[in-house]
Amino acid sequence: MAMTDASPPPADPAARARLIEAIRFDSRGLVPVVAQQHDSGEVLMLAWMDRAAVAETLATGRVTYFSRSRNALWRKGETSGQVQRLVDLRLDCDGDTLLALVDQLGVACHTGRRSCFSWALRDGAVQPIAAPLADPEALYRR
Amino acid sequence: MAMTDASPPPADPAARARLIEAIRFDSRGLVPVVAQQHDSGEVLMLAWMDRAAVAETLATGRVTYFSRSRNALWRKGETSGQVQRLVDLRLDCDGDTLLALVDQLGVACHTGRRSCFSWALRDGAVQPIAAPLADPEALYRR
Repeated sequence: MAMTDASPPPADPAARARLIEAIRFDSRGLVPVVAQQHDSGEVLMLAWMDRAAVAETLATGRVTYFSRSRNALWRKGETSGQVQRLVDLRLDCDGDTLLALVDQLGVACHTGRRSCFSWALRDGAVQPIAAPLADPEALYRR
Repeated sequence: MAMTDASPPPADPAARARLIEAIRFDSRGLVPVVAQQHDSGEVLMLAWMDRAAVAETLATGRVTYFSRSRNALWRKGETSGQVQRLVDLRLDCDGDTLLALVDQLGVACHTGRRSCFSWALRDGAVQPIAAPLADPEALYRR
């Protein structure tokens, strides 16, 4: 499945500012971002961006979130090496949610699974439905 | 692309309660839910559920959200007819986000577009990248 045929050309600073203007950040200055692998369609994770994270993501082409627990920019993969290259950034109809089409290197989840959405009810219990592809200890030992 | 081969069998009440117990609702009692078309992989929308919405969704197999603007349960499609049948409900690694694999009847977006994530930067401006498939006025006139 080719959900995106090609990346759009990088936007110039004025265009990037227009996109940021269209986003309705919440009362904390954050917007939820769904990350989806651009070609397979797999939903990888949900995280948050503030205005600076959106700006850095658009300017560098590497996805940067805002970590609510660390209260700081979170350059995805800066510790684990599992970076996300931005392919396209979509807004929803009321501008308060983003969909980032990305190319995920390795795994998105800190448990070593490709997607964070890897638990579901099976046989009456909440169980992992995907196996780790990487050793989480190795991911964060570097 | 077949992202899900088949729906799991409906869960019994005890199993559904176990799933709800595994969810970490936020301080408002809400959890964000990404809705994805189960077979095409298209990300349709992001909305929120409270505990009652999750319970109703699991019990009925029809996706019900919590409307933050109306402060009430929002049975998706109750006005527009554009219902979502639940195929599978996934939890993420820390239990604070859900991924609902759904079968979306018609369109998910109130603008008549299939997906709410239908705006992006093109040619230096934020533009719709998908056309409406339904007349929004007709959707809400019934």
